[in-house]
Amino acid sequence: MNTADLQYPGSHRIYIPGKLYPELRVAMREVMQEDTLFPDGRTETNAPVRLYDCSGPWGDPEFHGREEDGLPRLRAPWIAARGDIESDADGALRACDLAQPPTQRAYARRGIITPEMEYVAIRENLGREAAFKSIFDRFPSAKSRPEAAQQLLDELGTGMPRPSELAAQEGFSHHSLLRRADLNYQHPAEPRPGNRMPAYFTPEFVRDEIAAGRALIPANINHPEAEPMIIGRNFLCKINANIGNSAISSGIAEEVEKLRWAIHWGADTVMDLSTGKDIHRTREWILRNSPVPIGTVPLYQSLEKCSGMVEHLSWPIFRDTLIEQARQGVDYVTIHAALLRSFVPHTARRATGIVSRGGSIIAKWMMLNSRENFLYERWDDICDILATYDVGISIGDGLRPGSIADANDYAQLAELEVQGELTRRAWDKGVQVMNEGPGHVPLQLIPENMRKQLEWCAEAPFYTLGPLASDIAPGYDHITGAIGGAAIAQRGCAMLCYVTRKEHLGLPDREDVREGVVTYKLAAHAADLAKGHPAAQLRDNALAKARFEFRWEDQFNLSLDPHRARAYHDLTLPHSSAKKAHFCSMCGPNFCAMKLTQDLREAEQRGEL
Amino acid sequence: MNTADLQYPGSHRIYIPGKLYPELRVAMREVMQEDTLFPDGRTETNAPVRLYDCSGPWGDPEFHGREEDGLPRLRAPWIAARGDIESDADGALRACDLAQPPTQRAYARRGIITPEMEYVAIRENLGREAAFKSIFDRFPSAKSRPEAAQQLLDELGTGMPRPSELAAQEGFSHHSLLRRADLNYQHPAEPRPGNRMPAYFTPEFVRDEIAAGRALIPANINHPEAEPMIIGRNFLCKINANIGNSAISSGIAEEVEKLRWAIHWGADTVMDLSTGKDIHRTREWILRNSPVPIGTVPLYQSLEKCSGMVEHLSWPIFRDTLIEQARQGVDYVTIHAALLRSFVPHTARRATGIVSRGGSIIAKWMMLNSRENFLYERWDDICDILATYDVGISIGDGLRPGSIADANDYAQLAELEVQGELTRRAWDKGVQVMNEGPGHVPLQLIPENMRKQLEWCAEAPFYTLGPLASDIAPGYDHITGAIGGAAIAQRGCAMLCYVTRKEHLGLPDREDVREGVVTYKLAAHAADLAKGHPAAQLRDNALAKARFEFRWEDQFNLSLDPHRARAYHDLTLPHSSAKKAHFCSMCGPNFCAMKLTQDLREAEQRGEL
Repeated sequence: MNTADLQYPGSHRIYIPGKLYPELRVAMREVMQEDTLFPDGRTETNAPVRLYDCSGPWGDPEFHGREEDGLPRLRAPWIAARGDIESDADGALRACDLAQPPTQRAYARRGIITPEMEYVAIRENLGREAAFKSIFDRFPSAKSRPEAAQQLLDELGTGMPRPSELAAQEGFSHHSLLRRADLNYQHPAEPRPGNRMPAYFTPEFVRDEIAAGRALIPANINHPEAEPMIIGRNFLCKINANIGNSAISSGIAEEVEKLRWAIHWGADTVMDLSTGKDIHRTREWILRNSPVPIGTVPLYQSLEKCSGMVEHLSWPIFRDTLIEQARQGVDYVTIHAALLRSFVPHTARRATGIVSRGGSIIAKWMMLNSRENFLYERWDDICDILATYDVGISIGDGLRPGSIADANDYAQLAELEVQGELTRRAWDKGVQVMNEGPGHVPLQLIPENMRKQLEWCAEAPFYTLGPLASDIAPGYDHITGAIGGAAIAQRGCAMLCYVTRKEHLGLPDREDVREGVVTYKLAAHAADLAKGHPAAQLRDNALAKARFEFRWEDQFNLSLDPHRARAYHDLTLPHSSAKKAHFCSMCGPNFCAMKLTQDLREAEQRGEL
Repeated sequence: MNTADLQYPGSHRIYIPGKLYPELRVAMREVMQEDTLFPDGRTETNAPVRLYDCSGPWGDPEFHGREEDGLPRLRAPWIAARGDIESDADGALRACDLAQPPTQRAYARRGIITPEMEYVAIRENLGREAAFKSIFDRFPSAKSRPEAAQQLLDELGTGMPRPSELAAQEGFSHHSLLRRADLNYQHPAEPRPGNRMPAYFTPEFVRDEIAAGRALIPANINHPEAEPMIIGRNFLCKINANIGNSAISSGIAEEVEKLRWAIHWGADTVMDLSTGKDIHRTREWILRNSPVPIGTVPLYQSLEKCSGMVEHLSWPIFRDTLIEQARQGVDYVTIHAALLRSFVPHTARRATGIVSRGGSIIAKWMMLNSRENFLYERWDDICDILATYDVGISIGDGLRPGSIADANDYAQLAELEVQGELTRRAWDKGVQVMNEGPGHVPLQLIPENMRKQLEWCAEAPFYTLGPLASDIAPGYDHITGAIGGAAIAQRGCAMLCYVTRKEHLGLPDREDVREGVVTYKLAAHAADLAKGHPAAQLRDNALAKARFEFRWEDQFNLSLDPHRARAYHDLTLPHSSAKKAHFCSMCGPNFCAMKLTQDLREAEQRGEL
């Protein structure tokens, strides 16, 4: 893969230092913008826009590392400095003492703010200190951005706060301040259960969310290459992309390339779902080259060790596999421990039975062995292993519905209730937790999913697959999932697992991964706007301003997929002069709505309105 | 265009007769299904699935008409039989007497059930009589499907009604009845203001919805080629696709081809937004070949008549254009009459000003002429013209927000309030009405849009453009719009205007139209499920069953885009044997979740669970 393919146009990499930990260098992408050119010849500077960047060193043009060498071990000194780990015989790190496990949760509970916590606080803020200060200077008693927005509403005495009115009150000239106010403006969030979105992310806020179990930083002490990121409903909604070879296709190099491709487009975590040969070696390559947390389903490799014979699965095989993966550096693992034996008969009555691979393996094992789920029975042992390395648990939903008909049925909800029990037990061991969720759910049943998960699982982060809002669109299921995903993320789902347009049909190729990741970034962003994330709307505002001012290059560069935006534009108007022109192909040069509006604005300036 | 390109695989055209009007032949597509093959060798027949079909005669393989001749004049005898119209000097039909205008609204108010009304009742039911009867036989006191579902819930004493439990109670053998119950099962709708979704569509229900103004059948008496369809929140959510040449591209033949392509994929109405040369002749070709209602924005052609000079626009020019289009057969027109002069200064303060073409033309006209909007002042005259031909009004939202920042602002909502006033006045003239809506709206502000429209516009159908839930995804704005569109349609928006992935960037090509229409069908369908449309989930259930049983061909054929579903599948597993195989490429032959579930189901049958 040519690294030059993976650069965003008009952007550069910046690093922001910490305050508690000045040595931190939090990576972001900054999009440069052209000046605004007014019809009277005046110009106005447009500040660069800072964007969240998942690509790690691979996204830094100054980085020239090779995949064979792996990425720099960013977190190694932080981990070592805590003095609570030791090396085992083969050099993997592990806890010295499980009474004080080396997990972000345990640190948070003890009141310790780790470098990881400050890193994510800076990362989530996207450099918005200046913007937040302006509104808090105005409303110093406000404790949150929505509260400040409410005070602004009250002051204006209207349901519709307009930045221009605010600007006018501050006594600035209309045009200059208006724009500045616009760029900082964010619509208030909907009030929703569980929404505690702050106006500004502090390291202490991060610590508190982790201590309460409402968020996790998946960060295995054996994966120091990973840049800290946080999963929780009071942060940016995250997305996961799956990679992994299966018995009938792909190889190792291809999987690493898929990883780099997925994080380039914005995958916040990547799950390696390999089931074929070379599972261990594939994972090693992926981990050593991944700046994002890597998740796995250890049951898959356990089953490979039994040559696919489900009846031969056993706790010792699973335990050894879990330790093997934890020692390698896997950051979170899906474990289908909440699927109890008594739930299985309820799935035989479904439209589409059990569709989760892990769920069907466990169900078959329980049926063949006439025993309770060994993952449930060994939960405390599992948690001890995970606490030893700070591996997060993603408690699987093996009985997630595989069709609209099966949504929110007994089998699904019974498992969710057990997920809640297991969540609390894992927390007691110091393990970081999230809960996996559906699946296929029609829009009217999505609120019940979110409500029950919040209540039953004590606000642990929810991580859903889609959900797909219908069954009738194979070939378009990235969109079906984005519709459901935006709806559940808006209500507090913390991470969305992408599905690609090949879902239900085949394995995704490069373009499918790109389309899938961008589509889910979009769904997550729509939810971030709705949740009132304090930095979410700034990008919309900047892109809208660029659009209004016919700064085509900036419009492309600020978009989720600049290459596609530019390519589509150039299909109709390929000449570079068209990128400065005050019209687009939709209306033609004499018929541009935006041009007419600019005329109006100028008329207003001349006092003619 | 080769008509063979436009056939759906595994499908045939059927026609269902009326009861009040036995001569009706309501077109539907029926997808044939393979038998279920059980592992023990038994087979089970799967009934064909009836689908809504927008393609008209073009979708009937028995139809061999040519574009030069236009489509058969389906509605001509119905129109003539009512005896309330006359021909003008050039042969166009018009009302004899505006005291009793020939509009579906006027008939409905007088208690008349027209053939158009029975046609749409049959069309909306999709042949589901049998399914509805079964649940109503069980719960005869239930007045609606949600009510029957509630009674089922009460009877089961559980929050999770499972078809199998119902089946068991009825004393049928488990497997045979289970499947039948599943196929009829539909999750209850969310209770929502304005949702009166019935269990079964009767012609009287249709009449009542039209009389109340909650729905319209756009059906100009001069467009007898159109098959009746209904737009209203208590029916299937509809979608509109835009076509039309602009000054810098496309020709007439291309526009007719676009029309046929759009309705093949499922566009329920098509708007001809041509602005270039040959507007009249292009529209004539489109109308004579369109089985779906055609909408226009007459202001565009009016402006062409002024050579693009906004200041020369006048009521006489607009009036003549409106009559010209009504006489030709345009079924609904967008008129930006609710944009008052006093609202315009509020847009100069926006992030993106006025983005509606029509809105900006009117705003500029008011500014240049220092006068109130002539469309508002001439509203009664406009309504008289439209009532004469039964042209529906789509009251434009010229001040719809063009960015997230501008959503739900004063300018937008002020215009919405005037839309309500104009709605009532048009109704008094017997004119059928809908209201256009945004635009760009973040998810948390969508409910306010729907709530205010319902309240201020007296439940007239809402017809929105998207809305786009973010600004940051040029190149993916069909998806941004599907996310917002599903959210507003779920709350009762009656029709969604599609946007393509080229939105904001350029003119859509053939593949963009296909992708856009299918994406919006999907969004509308997700909303239909949520609204509890009684026939919506049947298609999901059938497709899910086909998926579970590895009937790949049926899975493709039942999907929104069978060609794409098949093509994606075949990329990974091209051999025809794979279409019978009990695995797909995601997991490989030894690792199929669905296969494992089938094993479970068989074990249950043998009493081993």
